[in-house]
Formats: sequence, structure tokens, C-alpha cells
Amino acid sequence: MSLLLKNVSHQNKITDILIDNGRFSKISPQQQPLDAEIIDCRNKAILPAFYNLHSHAGMSIFRGLSDDKELFSWLNQDIWPREAKLTPDMIHLATKFSILEMIKTGTVFFLDMYFEQQEILKAAQEMGVRTISALTGLDLFDPNKTKTEIEKIEKYISCPDHDERCAKGLMIHAVYSVSEELIRYIVKRSQEEGYYLTLHASETAKEVEDCLKTHGCTPIEYLDQLGALGPKTIVAHAVHLSDEDIALLARKKVPLCTNPVSNYKLASGLFMLQKLQKSGCILTLGTDSMASNNNLSMLEEMKLCALSAKIQSGDATAGNAEDIFNMATINGAQAVGLDAGIIAEGKLADCILVDLNNHFLIPNYNLISNMVYSADSSCIDTVICNGRILMQSHHVNGEEEIISEIKKLSDYFRN
Amino acid sequence: MSLLLKNVSHQNKITDILIDNGRFSKISPQQQPLDAEIIDCRNKAILPAFYNLHSHAGMSIFRGLSDDKELFSWLNQDIWPREAKLTPDMIHLATKFSILEMIKTGTVFFLDMYFEQQEILKAAQEMGVRTISALTGLDLFDPNKTKTEIEKIEKYISCPDHDERCAKGLMIHAVYSVSEELIRYIVKRSQEEGYYLTLHASETAKEVEDCLKTHGCTPIEYLDQLGALGPKTIVAHAVHLSDEDIALLARKKVPLCTNPVSNYKLASGLFMLQKLQKSGCILTLGTDSMASNNNLSMLEEMKLCALSAKIQSGDATAGNAEDIFNMATINGAQAVGLDAGIIAEGKLADCILVDLNNHFLIPNYNLISNMVYSADSSCIDTVICNGRILMQSHHVNGEEEIISEIKKLSDYFRN
Repeated sequence: MSLLLKNVSHQNKITDILIDNGRFSKISPQQQPLDAEIIDCRNKAILPAFYNLHSHAGMSIFRGLSDDKELFSWLNQDIWPREAKLTPDMIHLATKFSILEMIKTGTVFFLDMYFEQQEILKAAQEMGVRTISALTGLDLFDPNKTKTEIEKIEKYISCPDHDERCAKGLMIHAVYSVSEELIRYIVKRSQEEGYYLTLHASETAKEVEDCLKTHGCTPIEYLDQLGALGPKTIVAHAVHLSDEDIALLARKKVPLCTNPVSNYKLASGLFMLQKLQKSGCILTLGTDSMASNNNLSMLEEMKLCALSAKIQSGDATAGNAEDIFNMATINGAQAVGLDAGIIAEGKLADCILVDLNNHFLIPNYNLISNMVYSADSSCIDTVICNGRILMQSHHVNGEEEIISEIKKLSDYFRN
Repeated sequence: MSLLLKNVSHQNKITDILIDNGRFSKISPQQQPLDAEIIDCRNKAILPAFYNLHSHAGMSIFRGLSDDKELFSWLNQDIWPREAKLTPDMIHLATKFSILEMIKTGTVFFLDMYFEQQEILKAAQEMGVRTISALTGLDLFDPNKTKTEIEKIEKYISCPDHDERCAKGLMIHAVYSVSEELIRYIVKRSQEEGYYLTLHASETAKEVEDCLKTHGCTPIEYLDQLGALGPKTIVAHAVHLSDEDIALLARKKVPLCTNPVSNYKLASGLFMLQKLQKSGCILTLGTDSMASNNNLSMLEEMKLCALSAKIQSGDATAGNAEDIFNMATINGAQAVGLDAGIIAEGKLADCILVDLNNHFLIPNYNLISNMVYSADSSCIDTVICNGRILMQSHHVNGEEEIISEIKKLSDYFRN
């Protein structure tokens, strides 16, 4: 089954684009296949969709429950007691709701870390997006917990694989919450299975200070000593880095995922975007969860990422729109091994169609600048993932039901 | 003519609200007037609309034309040469387009400063919003220009007044661009006419340094010496303030308008929100222009204002959602003398209706938190100003024509 995007604006030219078997097969095809489904794309431009490299999709049920609090009281008083009540069904629903918001805001992939990873894979499969669902290892240095975590990891690894869009992965929660034994185990098993690995590191100044006291080195150095760093390890946050950390991350080709909104909301610190770019680090973008953001819009994340780079460096030329847009698209896709993130023949057919009559995109001197600095979700009309339409005219199939169910579930968590 | 908002969610209760003669006349009326126009507000919540205390609406034609540049090269190379080509008709259209975006994002008032103030008043009147259109005094210390600026001011003052929603005002561009003579003149004439006065001050570190060199005091102290500070003077930016500046601004009850997105985009600096709150300063919010933002969404401005307060103070409890929402609503309204900014009997009927089925507003544990941290324009269904509906079901009368004309005009400025 093929899909023909008719009269679409692509790099400021009007053309047709043919999608076949989940890939862009031809830009400006001479002929149009008889069986192609045709989408009228007049006054719409095609752009790559977004790849969200750090999320906890199951937390959508906690949006707005607790804000403007210090990290540890937020976790201890409000989040953890409620997380203890989450059932697999609830996580499945909360993840579908997160995916709905991702689709509405143009995202087709999320690197997720939460409980009940099978539910997350199932939700992504049902909604038609891509995911890597990473099982989070977290033992709090308790040897009994290390054991049960290892059992959980093995159980997850032994589960049957899902479709080509939805893959399993592993996560090291953080150096302050996972024992050396468990870190080494997770690293070894990810490598053996060919999984992507992800982790939180150097998110707060305190984390770095504590690690220096305990291990005599930074979290990045410690993770490197345990073999955790490489091109298949996505390091989330990476706010507080030494020059040596930066050189190490660049040399080992470790993709970094910055989550500016979350880092601001929890007052964690400013990502050194310009410095990291100059050092040759691979930079990607993520939203973190709805509980610390409070939405999953990569549009908002791009804008703050650009703005934050300028204020952090004191240089208005830092964090230019094109670089930031690439972080949210092609850099993210490549970091997780997807042959996507760009509208070109042969690439995976992940894209969005934006409405060129939407006020936020007018004037249209520079569409990428408009996407980074001006657009909101109202600009995104259509979302396509793997050649399949997930949203058209702002509507996602089944959205009313998801919304009705999540509203009911939120009543349960209200108090 | 009265308007009845039927079954609207107000402070978590479902009620009816009656609007008469531009004001909220009754919350939960016993009877409904026979001639009232009825709006079905099921699944919608009423909230105050936004008051944008700093804009240059005529600059909408420059959105996305030039980004990621240092302030002075941005002005000299890209903006000023094009501004020289603007005609009154163009400014009229560009302002209508800005107002369209304000309405789409829930704003009903803007304190504006640009050229051709009469066109701005006319545009606001046609679109149904409120404005104070301030004539900007800017003589660059050239005595000939001082004279022509004074003539312009007198001409503007002598123009007939517009309707009750649209008022004239004056502006001092900045201490680095306006002579002492002209500043004193503008202050005197504003006071005589009972106008609101506005100005840019302490936007960049350089401005403060230069002022210390030239005048031996800070811009705030210098403006105070010239009699410019008081409760009818809105100081925009106010980023780089000394402790003495802050005490002075609090004592004189000077409303400050922070423009976080613009301050970030131009790398100007971080507004000291928490410190200013503690000092008792009056705080309001503005977007600045589309050329340095690049949109006029007070939703985005609120979010960055809250996030920036946290990162600036290193305290995640700073900039809490309710305070920030008040800055964008009641504080802004009160700062410009409007009996509005809150949904209460007797107040001016300015409000928005938000869609409680929009995913960004779900779960709805805390609507104000959702508005500050999660919502985008897709949440705003209806906008009412002075009891008149400006937008319903996301549609503004005449929007297609404005968009079609502004697209044409942008072709003229493309090169």
C-alpha cells in the first residue's frame, strides 16, 4: 500500500512525495501508482517528525498534581506514594495518553523508562509510534533488591520481541541509586543483547558532589570505569559536566539527551549546549515526563533549548534554530539507529505536515525558525510514522476514548 | 445586550455567568434574561484573559526574518532598514495580524509601542481588543530630532480619543537613545494628560554600565531623577537591577513588565523574579515583539517566566504557577487601570473559555498549573473582551482575510 503526498511544500518547492513500504520511495515521482492513497497537501509543508529521547510516559496521570516543589519532597511526598498504586493496566492507559499528546505535537518515537515495560511496548504498538522501552534497574544498594532486579531484567529480555517499531532496552537509573554490581550487570546484558542503554547522569550539582565523595570521580567517569559509555548509551540530562567529562563523552561518541524544561522546572541547572557542540558531542532532545514539564511537546522543548543556550553562554547566536531542529529530528533518530529524521528518498517515512495558513507560521521567511521559535501544536495537521497516518486534520483515531478513560483514572489519584 | 455563559466550570464548580454592558453582572443568576445570547459552555472552564504589557505589534511582518543574531547587528542589518520601508497601511495590517495571534492565545489587551500609533489604535478598535498605544520618543540626542519628536507628541495628543477600550500613551525609548530634554518633556506631558507612560530600562548589562559612566547612576536612578517613575509608568525588561533600584521601584509602586522570551533570545539576562516579589515590586508580563520571541503567546511567556525564576534562584519553589498566572492577568490589568483580570461580579467581562477535553488540560488536578506549564493555544476555545465575543470555536471573524493579506505583504519584505 502506498501513500502519495500531493502538492506538498518541501524545502520551499511544491512537489509530490511517494511513500511505499514505510519509506519515502520517490520525491517528485513521474507517475503515480494506481493504488496509492492520495493526501491533498496544498498549503502544507512536510518536515521530519520528532524523536523524543527521554520520557517516562506512564507518569502522564500525575500531570499538575504537584508543582513548584523541591525535587526530593516532590518525589517522596507526591510521586512515589502514588506510583506504588499504579497497576499494569493504568500504566498502559497512561502511556497511550502520553503517546496521544506526542502525536498531537508531532513526535513519532520515544525512548522510555518506566515500570511495566511490556505495557509500554503494547501501547506504542497500538498507537502506531516507535519506541524503545527500557527496563529501569534501581536497587538502592540493597543486595536483595539487586537480585530481584536481575531477575526482572532476565524476564524482560526473555519476552518475545514486538514489531520492528518497538524494541526493548535497559536503563541504569543513576549512579546514586544503583549498585556497582547491578550497573555492571546491566551494561553486560545490554551489550550481549545488542540493546540500547540509557541512564540519568549529572543531572544535579549534588549528584556530582556526592559521586566525587563516594567514588573519587564524576558520575561520567564512574560510568566509564564500569564500561557503560559508548554510542549505544544515551545519557539523559548531562547538566553538570567537567571539561574531562565532555572530552570523554565526545571521544566515546555517547549521545546526550538534554531535557531543558525539566532541568529548569526542578532548578537542576543549565545544559552547556554551545560548549558541547564545539566539543563534538552528539546532542539530542527529550521532554522528560509530564510530571516535571508538564507536557510532551518537542516544540516547546526546542524553543527552551535554543533560548537556554543563548542565556547560558551570553551569546544570542548560540543554539541556532537549525541545530536545535536537527537535535529534535535527525540527531535523535540516528542516536537510536533509525534510518530516519530527514525527508529523503529511501529514508523511513516519518514526517509531519504543518499548516502554512496557521498564523504561527506566517510570515514564512524561515520555516525552521518558525517551528523552533513560534509554532505550537495547532500548526501540526498530520503525523505519519513508518508510512502510516497517525493523525490527520488534528485528529487521532480513538482519542476521545483515551481522554474519557484517563479523566476517570485521574479521579482515583486526586487525593 | 447580555450574554449568558451556560454550564461553565468556574473554580471547579459548574455554574452560569451573566454578562451585561461589558461586565460580569451575575454569577449563578436565578433567572436568565429573555434577550440574552446563550453560549453552551459544557466541558469548558472560564478564566481571566491575558494582559500583555509590552509589545511592538507592528513588527509581526518581521517574524523569522532574522534570528540567532546579536542585538545590534539584528537591529542595524535586518530590522531598521526594513522598518524604514513601513507605511501606515502596512503597520495597520501587521498590527491586526498581531492582534489575531493575541486573540488566538487568549490576550485581550496590549500595551504597545511602535510607529503610527493611530493605526494601532484603529486596528485594536476594529479587532475588539483593548490597547494603550504609546508614542515612542526617540531622538538619539540630536536637538533637531528632539524638536520633531516634540511636534509628533503634540500632534498625537491632539488627535481625537478613540473608544473606551483604546487609549493613547507615551514612551521613552530608553536612556541610551533619548535626551534628557525629551525625557523631561515626555514625563511632563504624560502627567498633564493623565497618560500611562512606558519605557525600556535596564535591559542589558551594557546599558547599565554605559549609564553609570555617562550619568554616574543606574538607568532606574536616572529616570527617577527626571521624575519618570511612579505607578503610571510601566518599566519594561528591568533585568539588571541593583538592590537600590529594586527598593526604589518598590517604594514608588512602579509596575515592572518582564519579557522572558525576548530576554533569553537576545541573551540579555535573567529577571530576578523571586527577589523582586520579596521586595514588594508590582510584576506584570509581556511578550515583546514577534521579531524577538517569535510569537505573542502569553502562555509560553508564563511558562518561561516560571521556569526562569526557578533556574535564576536555584529554587524549584520560586515562580509558582498561581503567582505567574496573576502576573499575566490581574496584575497586568490593574497596572494599566483596568477593573479586570478576575472573574467576579462587577468586573469588566474579559475572559477566555478553555476546553477541558483538550489533552493538555488533562488530568485537571490544578487548572492554573495546567495553564502555566502545559497548555498551548489549542486549549483556548473562546475569547471575550468587554462582554463581546472575539473568538469562538477557535475562529476569529475575518482571520482568513488578514492572513491572506499578511502573506502578500511578507513577499515584499522577503529580501
